[in-house]
Amino acid sequence: MGRSWWGWGDEDAAVTGEEAAALEQRVAALLPDADLTAHRPPAVHDVPLPAPRVSAPAALRAFVSDGHADRVAHARGKAFRDVVRNLHGAVDHAPDLVARPRTEQDVTDVLDWCTGAGVAVIPYGGGSSVVGGVEPRFDGPAVCLDTTAMNKVLEVDATSRAARVQAGILGPALEDALRPAGLTLRHFPQSFEFSTLGGWLATRAGGHYATVLTRIDDLTESMRVVTPAGTSESLRVPGSGAGPSPDGLFLGSEGTLGVITEAWVRLQDRPRYTASAAVHFDDYAGAVAATRALVQSGLSPSNCRLLDPVEAMLNAGTASQGGVLVLGFESADHPVDAAMDRAAELCADHGGAVRDRRSDDRAENSAGGRSGPGSAGAGGPARRWRSSFLRMPYQRDALAARSMIVETFETACTWDRFDALRHAVTAAAQDAMAQEGAAGVVSCRFTHVYPDGPAPYFGVYVAGRWGATVTQWDAIKSAVSEAIAREGGTITHHHAVGRDHRPWYDRQRPDVFAGAFRAAKSALDPGGVLNPGVLVDSDPRAAGRRNADPAPSR
Amino acid sequence: MGRSWWGWGDEDAAVTGEEAAALEQRVAALLPDADLTAHRPPAVHDVPLPAPRVSAPAALRAFVSDGHADRVAHARGKAFRDVVRNLHGAVDHAPDLVARPRTEQDVTDVLDWCTGAGVAVIPYGGGSSVVGGVEPRFDGPAVCLDTTAMNKVLEVDATSRAARVQAGILGPALEDALRPAGLTLRHFPQSFEFSTLGGWLATRAGGHYATVLTRIDDLTESMRVVTPAGTSESLRVPGSGAGPSPDGLFLGSEGTLGVITEAWVRLQDRPRYTASAAVHFDDYAGAVAATRALVQSGLSPSNCRLLDPVEAMLNAGTASQGGVLVLGFESADHPVDAAMDRAAELCADHGGAVRDRRSDDRAENSAGGRSGPGSAGAGGPARRWRSSFLRMPYQRDALAARSMIVETFETACTWDRFDALRHAVTAAAQDAMAQEGAAGVVSCRFTHVYPDGPAPYFGVYVAGRWGATVTQWDAIKSAVSEAIAREGGTITHHHAVGRDHRPWYDRQRPDVFAGAFRAAKSALDPGGVLNPGVLVDSDPRAAGRRNADPAPSR
Repeated sequence: MGRSWWGWGDEDAAVTGEEAAALEQRVAALLPDADLTAHRPPAVHDVPLPAPRVSAPAALRAFVSDGHADRVAHARGKAFRDVVRNLHGAVDHAPDLVARPRTEQDVTDVLDWCTGAGVAVIPYGGGSSVVGGVEPRFDGPAVCLDTTAMNKVLEVDATSRAARVQAGILGPALEDALRPAGLTLRHFPQSFEFSTLGGWLATRAGGHYATVLTRIDDLTESMRVVTPAGTSESLRVPGSGAGPSPDGLFLGSEGTLGVITEAWVRLQDRPRYTASAAVHFDDYAGAVAATRALVQSGLSPSNCRLLDPVEAMLNAGTASQGGVLVLGFESADHPVDAAMDRAAELCADHGGAVRDRRSDDRAENSAGGRSGPGSAGAGGPARRWRSSFLRMPYQRDALAARSMIVETFETACTWDRFDALRHAVTAAAQDAMAQEGAAGVVSCRFTHVYPDGPAPYFGVYVAGRWGATVTQWDAIKSAVSEAIAREGGTITHHHAVGRDHRPWYDRQRPDVFAGAFRAAKSALDPGGVLNPGVLVDSDPRAAGRRNADPAPSR
Repeated sequence: MGRSWWGWGDEDAAVTGEEAAALEQRVAALLPDADLTAHRPPAVHDVPLPAPRVSAPAALRAFVSDGHADRVAHARGKAFRDVVRNLHGAVDHAPDLVARPRTEQDVTDVLDWCTGAGVAVIPYGGGSSVVGGVEPRFDGPAVCLDTTAMNKVLEVDATSRAARVQAGILGPALEDALRPAGLTLRHFPQSFEFSTLGGWLATRAGGHYATVLTRIDDLTESMRVVTPAGTSESLRVPGSGAGPSPDGLFLGSEGTLGVITEAWVRLQDRPRYTASAAVHFDDYAGAVAATRALVQSGLSPSNCRLLDPVEAMLNAGTASQGGVLVLGFESADHPVDAAMDRAAELCADHGGAVRDRRSDDRAENSAGGRSGPGSAGAGGPARRWRSSFLRMPYQRDALAARSMIVETFETACTWDRFDALRHAVTAAAQDAMAQEGAAGVVSCRFTHVYPDGPAPYFGVYVAGRWGATVTQWDAIKSAVSEAIAREGGTITHHHAVGRDHRPWYDRQRPDVFAGAFRAAKSALDPGGVLNPGVLVDSDPRAAGRRNADPAPSR
């Protein structure tokens, strides 16, 4: 067993037996006409792949593989369209080689060789991209640079509450290493178990905190990045006003400028006091107004996730007229009940009824010292939603194998635009489903909220047609992306751009900035070898590597 | 009357009469050997200036001046070394022309003409730079582009609590325009009255909040920037993970990439509940430990400014063995007394004694609706320190005219390095004073604090020798900058780089980032006309403009 080559996470955690049956029942209740015949992926050895077009020089062979299973498993990320294509055994673009550098020198050696030989390099952490960020979707040869052998916590500064960490570490190993010091990074994206610090930094990942410290950027003190032009290391300070932030160039650079090898990250004391509640609304407009009032109050809940009625039903099993606000406060230092009291008042002002309120002043102890995306104590819908949160990707795979189109997309917009955006996105999704002859539902939740606007996260659950679900999804995705762009949302709040979001990113990004970024990339990656097609087109000097499959058209 | 051409702020606010006498008395008590003879600046008309080397084309003349007083008043910022050189009537480098564009098209026209004619352009807001950021310290001709005619609040979105504001607006006018909506930007740098939104953005200014929202970056939704390569406008959203932040390139760009013309900024409701206190310590190490505990507690005080004993005495008139922590909490939504209670407990754990504790639940009303850097209600040392804060630059000028060297410098470092850094900086300052044969004192306060470290702000008060105080200061500044660099601090937390910090900035900034930034600048400013010598050296293609006076050597 081990990591699944074709789907999410670990093979032995896949949905089977009773869980699968229950899932099928729920879907059948929602979409009675769905054909839920279960399809199976081929064995990894049976996936056809062309022979590698390049071979590593002798000096690199100690950590470079051209094995079939390695190449297949590193061929793409874990988006719905990735999983379905895997289920069909259709791996159009696989890396020719998989490099697993053990040191920064190994990284430099790979970049040097690739720059000299005109071979593309795709930096790869946990491989959990859902935007085509790690797929060599171009014609020339490619090396997948898997960072997970560089996976140590190198230093902990308990005084400043920070740690120097190698970028290839996965979430659980990082938390395990920090736990003895009573510290935690507390960055828990849904991909936590199967994504790396470097991947979080490269994609500006969103994490645990619904407010204030929403993004890995906020937890970053400094970074080391190996580029073809040399290694960049920013000064480790709590804040600097010395010119534009060097880290700001590399955060979100998605492997196009270099390979992030290390970072100093800001840590938290492990929370002791927690309070949680689920607030039910009869009216979604009231629920949105309450959420806005709450985030503008300065109370800074750690959890502030408004589930719309569809989301509440599908993922928390809770009937609700106007939605459920899953609310949490936490602190390592002081009780948070007064904050929850005031939050409840604000919700009541907008018609919210608090249920399942719980609090705990020994949170870390009661959770057995473990922490993670599902650890904070909360009852009822809150707890059910959290547990479902961790299972979602596995269930997505099970449904994808049953011809269901199950995928998410996300954005952020200012409060004044949210109503129009939600309506436009929902209508666009439903129109696209109708055109595809596919019945389905659209749900919405907030993953993060800011004083000036929410980060809405949409889910679609559609009965697709086996063999056509990728095309069907791409049509839906294209329609909702157009709606997001039209209504003033960002094409991504935390999933990144990759290859799949390029058309909308190119329109969103100021042209002047694009010119500056291209120039910066040419300075750091003069051969244009780093992740061609992501964020910007390949450097023309890097001949032969063109974006052969501009997603989501295929 | 009006703005002082040579010193800080308004001429009629200058220190005179009783205030001057009291100031002299205080200094005489501290430094009995100081020669406090008052010197006066020449009249602006008597300052010698070469004739302008260029004249504006006809199309620009409606908003371009070559007047003597305009050129002298725009020749430099308001650092100590600027004021002293003005007192001596020595304006080595003045702009040839002062342009006051009324529209973005005017800005574009200036950039186009200057790019074509090889004339440098120095973007200029309130002119309060203390780092040589607006001084045309090079050989070729220069236009000062004064943005203050573009000074309107264009739009207020009360739902999302944001406003679209022209960059040339000064602090008080911005707050006046927001007040009717009950909103405030609450960004109050010491220069608040005489600096602009565009200047804050270009220098990543630090503001009112000691924690969390410490910097104008945190209050910025999106920006418009006019560059020689076109106008960049970022999408207005509360957060985006679509590639590296476009705003991140322009925040801190100090006029080297373009002219910031507009921004959407995040606003706050005006605070209603406030609590303040002054916490006295017998032991500075305990005071530092208390401050660290406080900022790591997650209580997020709005004010958390630790004054060391020298600072407490000089600027709050308070005797203290170990320093005074000036503490404040505020909220528009909920009482903050519980937060202050917990803060007091944490301080007591480290030997702090709370005095002058006050709270107010009608803060905005009791302050008569006015807000600003000195408005929050606080008694005793807190209030005295705040009032002194606003007068400091004026008093600095009065003392500069009396041969005193009165200047500040600032940094940020992680907590584990702070003790060593403070000792090294203080020793370096004292050694340099001794070498200059000048007696003086060094004070330290924290302007902002982060969970991972403080932003220490140092002041020097030195009895100088008339005619030599700039040289003496430059020697001290160089010594303390070396100490900061050696001990792992940033060369600036919020004063910016300008021309004066270049030697240390060049060492601090990763070379790889410098290469990327230079490439980005070449793409946006191909003529190399924008603020040559700031952040990076002039583009070689822009011949004739070399950094003729690398500060602080003159």
